[in-house]
Amino acid sequence: MEIKKDIGIHKPTTGKRQYRNFPMVPRVIFGRGSFDQLGDILMPKRRHSEAPFIFLVDDVFEGKALSTRIPIIFNDQVIFISADEEPKTAQVDALVHKIKSEFNELPSGIVGIGGGTLLDLAKAVAILLTNKGSSSDYQGWDLVDKPSVYHVGVPTISGTGAEVSRTTVLLGPEKKLGINSDHTTFDQVVLDPDLTKGVSKEQWFYTGMDCYIHCIESLNGTYLNAFSQSYGEKALELCKKVYLDELSPAESRDQLMMASWHGGMSIAYSQVGVAHAMSYGLSYLLGVKHGIGNCMVFQHLKEFYPEGVRLFNKMKQKHQVHLPSGICSGLTESDYESMIGISLGMVPLWENALGPDWRSIATPEKLRSIYGRI
Amino acid sequence: MEIKKDIGIHKPTTGKRQYRNFPMVPRVIFGRGSFDQLGDILMPKRRHSEAPFIFLVDDVFEGKALSTRIPIIFNDQVIFISADEEPKTAQVDALVHKIKSEFNELPSGIVGIGGGTLLDLAKAVAILLTNKGSSSDYQGWDLVDKPSVYHVGVPTISGTGAEVSRTTVLLGPEKKLGINSDHTTFDQVVLDPDLTKGVSKEQWFYTGMDCYIHCIESLNGTYLNAFSQSYGEKALELCKKVYLDELSPAESRDQLMMASWHGGMSIAYSQVGVAHAMSYGLSYLLGVKHGIGNCMVFQHLKEFYPEGVRLFNKMKQKHQVHLPSGICSGLTESDYESMIGISLGMVPLWENALGPDWRSIATPEKLRSIYGRI
Repeated sequence: MEIKKDIGIHKPTTGKRQYRNFPMVPRVIFGRGSFDQLGDILMPKRRHSEAPFIFLVDDVFEGKALSTRIPIIFNDQVIFISADEEPKTAQVDALVHKIKSEFNELPSGIVGIGGGTLLDLAKAVAILLTNKGSSSDYQGWDLVDKPSVYHVGVPTISGTGAEVSRTTVLLGPEKKLGINSDHTTFDQVVLDPDLTKGVSKEQWFYTGMDCYIHCIESLNGTYLNAFSQSYGEKALELCKKVYLDELSPAESRDQLMMASWHGGMSIAYSQVGVAHAMSYGLSYLLGVKHGIGNCMVFQHLKEFYPEGVRLFNKMKQKHQVHLPSGICSGLTESDYESMIGISLGMVPLWENALGPDWRSIATPEKLRSIYGRI
Repeated sequence: MEIKKDIGIHKPTTGKRQYRNFPMVPRVIFGRGSFDQLGDILMPKRRHSEAPFIFLVDDVFEGKALSTRIPIIFNDQVIFISADEEPKTAQVDALVHKIKSEFNELPSGIVGIGGGTLLDLAKAVAILLTNKGSSSDYQGWDLVDKPSVYHVGVPTISGTGAEVSRTTVLLGPEKKLGINSDHTTFDQVVLDPDLTKGVSKEQWFYTGMDCYIHCIESLNGTYLNAFSQSYGEKALELCKKVYLDELSPAESRDQLMMASWHGGMSIAYSQVGVAHAMSYGLSYLLGVKHGIGNCMVFQHLKEFYPEGVRLFNKMKQKHQVHLPSGICSGLTESDYESMIGISLGMVPLWENALGPDWRSIATPEKLRSIYGRI
């Protein structure tokens, strides 16, 4: 029996297909200023005064107004973390060690406040507080046994879909791969579009394009069904509105936050594709961040996503975003091999993108040629 | 402080608005044939062999193939229920009494299999198994104290949105009103479009139009925000596809099931409007079923929803659906007064539709005139 665990579609050779029973975020609050309700939301989840909430917060907010609005009481702790690099398994393990050694009690919960990096860290820490060993032990599909600690996601950049997905993507000692599990999904998400006010134009573009690329990959994939399609189409439409129409800043923030939400949901019964598979290689070898890495790859994927790439270039031009070039020019052939190996290892992504015969299309030579242009 | 509990938007006179922390269905499985996974899904929720699952099933399935696929084990019970009439508080109370008297243990869970009537009954029974008194005690907003028994929704007709909403609308001794609460939402939903295969054309139309009308009312309402808007727009688009384009039957079933899902979600931060307010009056007095009642009212609401009504008529014509007429012709003035009273009592619906000054537009005379044409 061949089981594609990552998309939950089991295909027993004998017959009936099986579908994933998809975990949705069970609680969501949406609205400008809704962050101020976080304290009320957490209160009933506090087990007692010795079981703190740990807030993992993007360090761009250190000393800023937002940090004074974090609802800390009792022995709660705020930990500011840089999102300059992709989240790492070692970083997760260190955070878990720190929390376990500083408190006698398991925390009441973990709250991630930031972009995809902080959200993914919060998810992973919540899992590792109740599951033994290193976070790298759980990179893969459905390897997490025990329910995680209650965890809350508060996105401050829109696009990754991390707020709604059942994965947390980590750079490990040997691979960049998600902890894909039902225990990964947040228990609560706070969607306050006002929190995305200070994001730089570049970051806004790269992260929003993560959502856009999710949609293109999901909608053009072979795994697609009507559930994922409806979310993907809506997210794509909202991305087009945000990046090609003229919206007011407030409306644009609202719509991009919803695009990210729906884009994340569209992966439920689908999968990402070529851009993500190749950008994982780039991230692993060069530490290129996920959003910009996707963009750097995607612009060269006209062969796979002709209309998607055309529109991407139009959006890039409209917002005068210039992507770095020549990133791979100094690499050795062994570096290339390593990137290609990582990328081709993402079997479900390739299979979604190109079907069961993907290996005849996505050859090492083709990837070498695309990487060479980045 | 004025609190609009029903949409979760509290508007304290002092300042900041508050948003509802919306409960989403935490688990959903979607796919043709996914009903066959129900047994596996329920297994880990069985407390022990004496705590049964109770399946409330539309009696159109009695003796049909579907009833043989219900995963009954131990002392599980299947109760077939007619959906010919709207669900009633007395019916809920009787079901709860029956279950409590036949079993020493609380059930492991309640599974509703059917259209909106069966789904609403399942939700209400799950609540009343753990909350004392009559179901009519809980009609209103946020009156349910205790978590309900685990409950699962399996829609076999698409459109009501009952599978995803936080309400269960019941005909009580004094009113038709929902039990609106966070404990109402299903714990699990199984979306298997194949289950909607045998629905008659009329029922398919009326129930699908429930979704269509949700969208028109939500998108044209004053309560709308970007969250509800994105779901409402998608649901509306899917309704148009299903009722105006030429889809294959299988694709049409897929898309309408997703339309219903998104249409239900679009009410999260919004509300229904004039058609629902008036059709509640019709249901209460004449027992007219919800779907057809909405249609009978909506066709006369050109003044409030000009474009929505135009498109409705186009869809009605395309599918050659003929609505009954002269329904109200035999009513006394006292009957009219009673319907008008019920309808105007739905304050949040009118306020959503017409804004704070709704009473100057929705006068008893205007409602009398519209009802008179039905």
